[in-house]
Amino acid sequence: MKVYGDLLSGNCYKVKLLLEFLGIEHEWLHINVLKAESHTPEFLQMNPNGKIPVLVLDDGRVLMESNAILGYLAEESKFIPTDRYAKAKMYEWMFFEQYSHEPFIAVARFINKYLGLPKARIDEYHALQPKGHKALAIMEQALGRHDYLVGNELTLADISLYAYTHVADEGGFDLSLYPNIQAWCQRIQNYPAYKSMAV
Amino acid sequence: MKVYGDLLSGNCYKVKLLLEFLGIEHEWLHINVLKAESHTPEFLQMNPNGKIPVLVLDDGRVLMESNAILGYLAEESKFIPTDRYAKAKMYEWMFFEQYSHEPFIAVARFINKYLGLPKARIDEYHALQPKGHKALAIMEQALGRHDYLVGNELTLADISLYAYTHVADEGGFDLSLYPNIQAWCQRIQNYPAYKSMAV
Repeated sequence: MKVYGDLLSGNCYKVKLLLEFLGIEHEWLHINVLKAESHTPEFLQMNPNGKIPVLVLDDGRVLMESNAILGYLAEESKFIPTDRYAKAKMYEWMFFEQYSHEPFIAVARFINKYLGLPKARIDEYHALQPKGHKALAIMEQALGRHDYLVGNELTLADISLYAYTHVADEGGFDLSLYPNIQAWCQRIQNYPAYKSMAV
Repeated sequence: MKVYGDLLSGNCYKVKLLLEFLGIEHEWLHINVLKAESHTPEFLQMNPNGKIPVLVLDDGRVLMESNAILGYLAEESKFIPTDRYAKAKMYEWMFFEQYSHEPFIAVARFINKYLGLPKARIDEYHALQPKGHKALAIMEQALGRHDYLVGNELTLADISLYAYTHVADEGGFDLSLYPNIQAWCQRIQNYPAYKSMAV
């Protein structure tokens, strides 16, 4: 299989991390988001939404949306709970990630780290801070109850949320305010197959 | 089971629609979003994110995020494909809904229909229009290839995206530009158990 992605993007990195954890052979094709390489006519043919990552199976079938790709890759692995409620909680966290976490933390990180906090976007950057902290506070509370987001085993919810959370400081979010999150990051980093983000 | 929700919200309506399609008995507890009833201390105890819908099982366990609730309710029903790739495509559309559709179409609808298009938000409203049309164009293209989003059978992807799409005109999006979407809406409305949005 092939993955089109840019490891600067947490949405791509989460797919890379799962591929490493599962030991799945793959070809990684670099798409430079900063050069808008996901908006060329050829790329839009593959994903009309112009976003990465994109998974292309050996038979040519295409899959978009980072969290849907995680679900596909981890099918029948230990990273998806078999219990109906636990599996739904896993997806709850993954939808939380895309709606209530990524739009604030990933965007603040992008504005700060990759755009250099330009004046034109500084109001937006500041407006993102309380929203990102709200997401982190919700995670902190859950991680006070168990080692991982859904319970005491690592699931896709953790891989999904780890991607942008562990680099949230690059978006101006001080992780030292969240000791449970810090301990959880360490737990994930202790996995033998762990690979750090290419930043 | 109990569902806390407001049928003015497409995120809540999609859960109601699936409950009707599945014929699941439930208690619907009205939470008025316009009165911020999802932000009371009692509600935040249940969902610290202050959002609806919330599903509460008979044993008291709680589930948030509309699309995760759909997945829980439809487990082992015909609305979730058994094929691994088709199931992943279903989730791909559901993540697309939360990231690339709802934040534009639902928010434009809210500003227009419920806030009465106030001057303070008119720039935001106009900025949402091309983004919402982009999402609708992606759906239109897919619905030119098959009757439903994932193939020729109705899945959770359709129920999820139908909720805000069929009322997109209330957010200023002219659906007559999208004949495939209109035919798809009609197909869903033809289901015997179909219930319209309480608007």
